[in-house]
Amino acid sequence: MLPKTASFSFGLESYLCDFTGRATLPLIGNFILQAATNHAQKRGFGFDSMSACGRAWVLSRLSIEINEYPEHNSLIRVETWVEAVANYFTRRCFRIINSEDISLGHALSIWAAIDINTRQPVDIPTACPGLADYVETDRTCPIGGISRIPPLREAAPADAYVVRYSDIDINRHMNSIKYIEHVVNLFDMEMFRNSQIRKFDITYLAEGMFGDRLELFMQAAGASEYLVDTRKGSDSLCRSRIIWQESSRQAAGGIS
Amino acid sequence: MLPKTASFSFGLESYLCDFTGRATLPLIGNFILQAATNHAQKRGFGFDSMSACGRAWVLSRLSIEINEYPEHNSLIRVETWVEAVANYFTRRCFRIINSEDISLGHALSIWAAIDINTRQPVDIPTACPGLADYVETDRTCPIGGISRIPPLREAAPADAYVVRYSDIDINRHMNSIKYIEHVVNLFDMEMFRNSQIRKFDITYLAEGMFGDRLELFMQAAGASEYLVDTRKGSDSLCRSRIIWQESSRQAAGGIS
Repeated sequence: MLPKTASFSFGLESYLCDFTGRATLPLIGNFILQAATNHAQKRGFGFDSMSACGRAWVLSRLSIEINEYPEHNSLIRVETWVEAVANYFTRRCFRIINSEDISLGHALSIWAAIDINTRQPVDIPTACPGLADYVETDRTCPIGGISRIPPLREAAPADAYVVRYSDIDINRHMNSIKYIEHVVNLFDMEMFRNSQIRKFDITYLAEGMFGDRLELFMQAAGASEYLVDTRKGSDSLCRSRIIWQESSRQAAGGIS
Repeated sequence: MLPKTASFSFGLESYLCDFTGRATLPLIGNFILQAATNHAQKRGFGFDSMSACGRAWVLSRLSIEINEYPEHNSLIRVETWVEAVANYFTRRCFRIINSEDISLGHALSIWAAIDINTRQPVDIPTACPGLADYVETDRTCPIGGISRIPPLREAAPADAYVVRYSDIDINRHMNSIKYIEHVVNLFDMEMFRNSQIRKFDITYLAEGMFGDRLELFMQAAGASEYLVDTRKGSDSLCRSRIIWQESSRQAAGGIS
């Protein structure tokens, strides 16, 4: 049996970074999913084993907390482990670490398993019996839980887009991180110049498909907190909570 | 001195792949730029050395030819070397190889160096004296050259988008690969299900900036060839040529 926790390294190539020279939140989200994919694949409950028996993992909720965004040309590691398995959900945690072994942030994810054809949830211990052996029982995630984001009552239309080829992933639906990319794109350069996203929570509710026209509705929920609803018609596909804080480094107006 | 040619490995994680389970063209484009960045960085003419003296590399033209798109969960290597240096341009080549050492495709790129403040081209041998030592003189690229894509005369409006936070890179302009992503998004799922992009050429003409509204104009230029102009008002920012061919594998309607 492999160790319950695994860690994976990622290079912050300059061209992957934003105009301030730091990782973007969607990039960190991609690294997190990549670490989860690798961890599960090597332990026999990844994409291949699941799809061989007509199942797929579906991300249900994700919370990412970043104290400090890694700089371009640095290396980071993402540690990941399974924290809990229940009938219809499993919790996976992540720690993001720089090359000096300092925590830059954490993430917590909640996953369901679905039947590929019916798109209905399946019982995880039955669908994936090997998973229970890998639960890391004596390690908790600093992010205690992910509260469900309630329907938005006072949100105003903020943007709209059509789901295209590059939004669709191997599960033939809108990629989880692409929703996040469209949400962070609601904010302008000034916001990213002087501040940074401290916490990003997302609740996934329904699947976006090729050609869907999605609308983003936003409302402020405090001085530095925003809620965003990604809707197809009157249905919410996902709801996000974005909490900002002052930038952890000198506001230099970007590298130059 | 390091070897003139270097190769870099990339994992095709499932979630990075398209709905057919294969790498997308923009993903391969990202790997190519990542290989170029790493190669240059380690040899003293990368982003850091250039920006330290107020210079930046700017991609002027890029041609990517793919015979076979790599499948999810495979590993690929990208070999890269500098083929030529002239006063205002340098040519860098790439070979994309699977884990059995079979060529999946090639790419050729042409770069200029600019002064970060004036945005004007600078003399490369002066700006970057170390580069000449790394020219691989006895190896040519199967892609002989990249013909300039002429202005489009019969193109029809096909799409429009606004340049957002996630489109902007560390050079504080629209990222080269993001233009490609928006261009491939013009095609629908059926096209990608039954065929694949055999050759993609792009000529970069001007920089897109945050907030710019860009319009895509497209015209057919043969049975399986399309030209796309990415414009800001009446100015072309880049022009692309996309050549399709029948898919190299069974049209399976995507994985499932």
